[in-house]
Amino acid sequence: MLPSKKGPRTDISLAGALLAPRSIAIVGASDDPAKTSGRPLQYLLRAGYQGRVYPINARRDTVLGQRAWPSLSALPEVPDHAFILAPTKDVVAAVTECAALGVGVATILATGFSEGGAEGQKLVEQLREICRTSGLRILGPSSIGVIDFHSKVLLTANAAFAEQDLLVGGTFVASHSGSLLGALLSRGKARSVGFSGMVSVGNEIDLSLGEICTATLEDPNITGYLLFLESLRHAGDLRAFAFEAAKRNKPIVAYKLGRSAQAAELALSHTGALAGEDDIAEAFLADCGIARVQNFESLLETLPLLSRIPIRPVAGRPPRVGVVTTTGGGGAMVVDGLGLRGVDVIKASDETFARLTKAGIGAHHERVIDLTLAGTRSDVMKAALDTMLSAPEFDLVVAVIGSSARFQPDLAVKPVIESADAEKPLVAFIVPDAPEALAKLAQAGVPSFRTPECCADAIAAAFRRRTSRTPQAAPKQFRKTAASQLNEWDAYALFEKIGLPHAPAARIAVDAEHIELPFGYPVAVKVLSEVIAHKTDVGGVILNIASEPALKAAIGQIVRSVKDKRPDVEVNHVLVQPMTSGLGEVLLGYKKDADAGPIVLLAAGGIFTEIYRDRSIRLAPVELQTAREMISELAITRAFEGYRGKKSRRSRFSRPRGRRVVATRAQRRI
Amino acid sequence: MLPSKKGPRTDISLAGALLAPRSIAIVGASDDPAKTSGRPLQYLLRAGYQGRVYPINARRDTVLGQRAWPSLSALPEVPDHAFILAPTKDVVAAVTECAALGVGVATILATGFSEGGAEGQKLVEQLREICRTSGLRILGPSSIGVIDFHSKVLLTANAAFAEQDLLVGGTFVASHSGSLLGALLSRGKARSVGFSGMVSVGNEIDLSLGEICTATLEDPNITGYLLFLESLRHAGDLRAFAFEAAKRNKPIVAYKLGRSAQAAELALSHTGALAGEDDIAEAFLADCGIARVQNFESLLETLPLLSRIPIRPVAGRPPRVGVVTTTGGGGAMVVDGLGLRGVDVIKASDETFARLTKAGIGAHHERVIDLTLAGTRSDVMKAALDTMLSAPEFDLVVAVIGSSARFQPDLAVKPVIESADAEKPLVAFIVPDAPEALAKLAQAGVPSFRTPECCADAIAAAFRRRTSRTPQAAPKQFRKTAASQLNEWDAYALFEKIGLPHAPAARIAVDAEHIELPFGYPVAVKVLSEVIAHKTDVGGVILNIASEPALKAAIGQIVRSVKDKRPDVEVNHVLVQPMTSGLGEVLLGYKKDADAGPIVLLAAGGIFTEIYRDRSIRLAPVELQTAREMISELAITRAFEGYRGKKSRRSRFSRPRGRRVVATRAQRRI
Repeated sequence: MLPSKKGPRTDISLAGALLAPRSIAIVGASDDPAKTSGRPLQYLLRAGYQGRVYPINARRDTVLGQRAWPSLSALPEVPDHAFILAPTKDVVAAVTECAALGVGVATILATGFSEGGAEGQKLVEQLREICRTSGLRILGPSSIGVIDFHSKVLLTANAAFAEQDLLVGGTFVASHSGSLLGALLSRGKARSVGFSGMVSVGNEIDLSLGEICTATLEDPNITGYLLFLESLRHAGDLRAFAFEAAKRNKPIVAYKLGRSAQAAELALSHTGALAGEDDIAEAFLADCGIARVQNFESLLETLPLLSRIPIRPVAGRPPRVGVVTTTGGGGAMVVDGLGLRGVDVIKASDETFARLTKAGIGAHHERVIDLTLAGTRSDVMKAALDTMLSAPEFDLVVAVIGSSARFQPDLAVKPVIESADAEKPLVAFIVPDAPEALAKLAQAGVPSFRTPECCADAIAAAFRRRTSRTPQAAPKQFRKTAASQLNEWDAYALFEKIGLPHAPAARIAVDAEHIELPFGYPVAVKVLSEVIAHKTDVGGVILNIASEPALKAAIGQIVRSVKDKRPDVEVNHVLVQPMTSGLGEVLLGYKKDADAGPIVLLAAGGIFTEIYRDRSIRLAPVELQTAREMISELAITRAFEGYRGKKSRRSRFSRPRGRRVVATRAQRRI
Repeated sequence: MLPSKKGPRTDISLAGALLAPRSIAIVGASDDPAKTSGRPLQYLLRAGYQGRVYPINARRDTVLGQRAWPSLSALPEVPDHAFILAPTKDVVAAVTECAALGVGVATILATGFSEGGAEGQKLVEQLREICRTSGLRILGPSSIGVIDFHSKVLLTANAAFAEQDLLVGGTFVASHSGSLLGALLSRGKARSVGFSGMVSVGNEIDLSLGEICTATLEDPNITGYLLFLESLRHAGDLRAFAFEAAKRNKPIVAYKLGRSAQAAELALSHTGALAGEDDIAEAFLADCGIARVQNFESLLETLPLLSRIPIRPVAGRPPRVGVVTTTGGGGAMVVDGLGLRGVDVIKASDETFARLTKAGIGAHHERVIDLTLAGTRSDVMKAALDTMLSAPEFDLVVAVIGSSARFQPDLAVKPVIESADAEKPLVAFIVPDAPEALAKLAQAGVPSFRTPECCADAIAAAFRRRTSRTPQAAPKQFRKTAASQLNEWDAYALFEKIGLPHAPAARIAVDAEHIELPFGYPVAVKVLSEVIAHKTDVGGVILNIASEPALKAAIGQIVRSVKDKRPDVEVNHVLVQPMTSGLGEVLLGYKKDADAGPIVLLAAGGIFTEIYRDRSIRLAPVELQTAREMISELAITRAFEGYRGKKSRRSRFSRPRGRRVVATRAQRRI
């Protein structure tokens, strides 16, 4: 029965071996159902898994009433999937056996690999080598398992899967954290979220989260993806998956940890370090069309909304939301939440308001259509929602439902369900505790929220997604290449080669007798060196030089100062540039991020780059529309556009010539 | 039976008449229990109110089985409290009758007063006049009623109070929004939060939210206050209440609307307008010792925590939190949430870690003590919590409990309850859906949270509270006085009078023949005028003047330019000051806010004041410790302290002399 050759299994797909294996071996299965290693078999049996299960336990004849097998090689067939529950020290041997036999996927529970120091790293290398030289794919290590509810594969050691009456549905969960799967399972159940499957990706030493999700894309049971991310590991795979998912209209929502480490830290040094990882992750996820939510609960609430809002094209107009409420306070909470997240709630147009009035709705013409207690009636609610949903000014309508939702869902909840079929998305925020109303809304597929914060979070995250571009030649892993430093003159030469305009500059030998400049005085002079990063620290910059003699004196002063402060550096040239002033300063950076790949960064310049972190980040390449959008995202742009009745500085920046000036200043900082 | 004279009731306190009246009249009570005006009587009867209720309805003999009365004056006694359900047009007449009879409190349901335009404002004035000339106090208008669960006064028209099995407890709710009371009631019930009473304060034309709460302070049933605020109306009363509440160790938690309008708006002009209302509210609430939460759900979750954390003294050291978890992902979410809100989660000290190890806890020595699945045992959890709670480095410990909380609360929830008696506060975040565990924790008085965001929100809000100072001479209402503008010279004179140092300055007549300066060149010269706010706009500033002849020329240039651009302004003097450079610029402002009263504002100067809103606000007066704290809160302070290996600018600012320099620059901007 054993295949005679190594190599990838051709009789079953990765998704098949991973999520719908015809046969499963459980290496190290325990007969004690209370033990971690007793759980997978127990759950598989209870779920009614229809394939063949082989508990491997050399010390027993039976395990939980099933025939036990002494080893993988003793099995009557090669299992599609092996779940290895063995302790860390025995894992490599088990995996070696899997590979030798031709097992499709081995899932490893044990920890102590990627996080296990040098010892663990050695084991990781051994496992990777096995994958490279065989067809075996590894899930984990440190994976709590994989679950497919449709094929009844509850292949997990997570105690939370003792849960009964699991709600099967279309959401596939992939998580860096295994323990979180249980929380998502129970919270999903409480909110009528049905799952298709779940995977704990563990250390991702072979199969990455992105690759696993990509493998599931053709599964018709899956309607959307829910990701719990600890980092942007294997971002290339994630990007490729997101691109393919968008093509298939399968939305992705993600919660990513690691926001605060960056928020707390003062970025201290260079452009490279400046774009804190989380800011890059934020841009990466948006550019991938993945909705990143900030609230844990939104993670479970957002997918129904995503499937109703297309990922927006770059530089589309900002989204506009209408709000209908039966409780003023409840409506105001949503408006506040949306405003804080940059989403505009707008007043109904005069025409729409006239239509509302004609429909018998007695609300005031304000930012929120407040039906009040008196208007908490199904006919009024339905008319208000239908009028708002057919009004051209809104991209989305939020229905905020007060206390009636708890005991009288017919008054305001039912009309929401009836109106939710409209072309435009309608979402509901339920202000009181009303689990039954929420369940009804969820079962009807209406995006619905328990808190104003999650409602606003989800809407903002949905609209923040940007059209996914082909990840052309995006390498699977982005590696940082050693950076080499150019002096400014050489950098300008590079810019000229690729057609980038820059500020006028002249390279002058420090011992030049006559200095002829291609531009007039006053000028600035700077030491020209590829090793001195911060020139002012060594007295290497002198500004406002009015004449050739003064320039010569300044050059002499710079040479002496640098000789004094950096005797290791030989200074042969200085860079001379015309003085400019009154312009804002921006920083334009490009780098290959170790996780996210090539990115473009635009930031307010000077000390404000570091103190206020006023910036915009995109995955490279950036098109003109996106570049304009980035400029508009900077707060400093408002200074360029003029404010406080001062002479507007906008004209210098909004015309093509003006934009060149900005670019020029920016390049000088790189 | 009717009292013969007008004047305040002396036989019952305000709190008594409001919340524990011996007799209640319901003016306009309906016999239809489904109608709004049928509810109050219905709820009072159902609740088992022990006082006397008098439905007033001239068209009926009975109302809901009770004898109906034709008018207030027909009653056999003067009721302590009258709930007026009459339509807007009939309210003044009913209130007049209440006043004439000597009713203690009249609560008005109708709308159309403060929000009813000129017509409504006229009615408000009439009602106020009645209060002024009688002893009557008014709750509302637009009040949905008032509830005291202990005295069974369910005097409300809010349909949500049809709720059965209400949980009575120690939380008193005061809300600007009446409809929100129902949501708080049902959400509270779902989370085992028991209420003492609730009041919908409506338009507050007479009784303000602060005054009402103050009146309840001696109620032994009340252990804490929960406020839902739409604005900082009547902030003087609120401040006085908060001060008294702090003295009695009755904590206050508030949710305040209106965050986003400010976040979205670019503050456009002067210092006065700069501190957007919500920023002032934020400072006001913190200075009052009120915990302001950002999440609606935190509003219900935070009080148990507040009663365990004293309001911190000004400029105490930043709070430090320890985290123990059974789920790595869950613990990380709390750490992330706290970090985003400026609360540090710190590693256990070496000593504490040694004690943990000795207690048999096999966790790694990391920022979070992760017990993992293997350590999800009551003995391990208990030992970990007790060790952390007795460690000197933590101010608070968070227990994050994973899936075991759902079905096996004995493993990790029970130890939390057992350890929560420690001197230091212990709070729990429950990661899965586990309503029973949350109920157990709530019943045991342990601060417990459903989401990582609310957990972090509550902790941050609790630590953000500052010691409440006596609101000395704080006027009940703060009114904006017309601002008068001083020119810089006169402003400096005023500074000298009050002992504030300022930058050197000389006032020079524009036609001066000889100019003697009390400081050297180079200097800056500026037009001196109390009517020209933005001097550069009129060519009124010239910098870097090196000599007397150049100064004279500059003065001439300024005079010509101002004559050209502001022919209406006569320029007699200029202000001359020595050039300074290389210092940061900060703005120090003082104003009487219309709501919050006198405030002090410190902000990053220049365009960054307006663009980055980098600032710190406090209620005046500000003491030295607080001033230092304000300085440390500005992001721009980091620039003054030096960064990126540049020459630190700190020395100029951290020494007494340096601080004077900052102050001087600041004053110039005012």
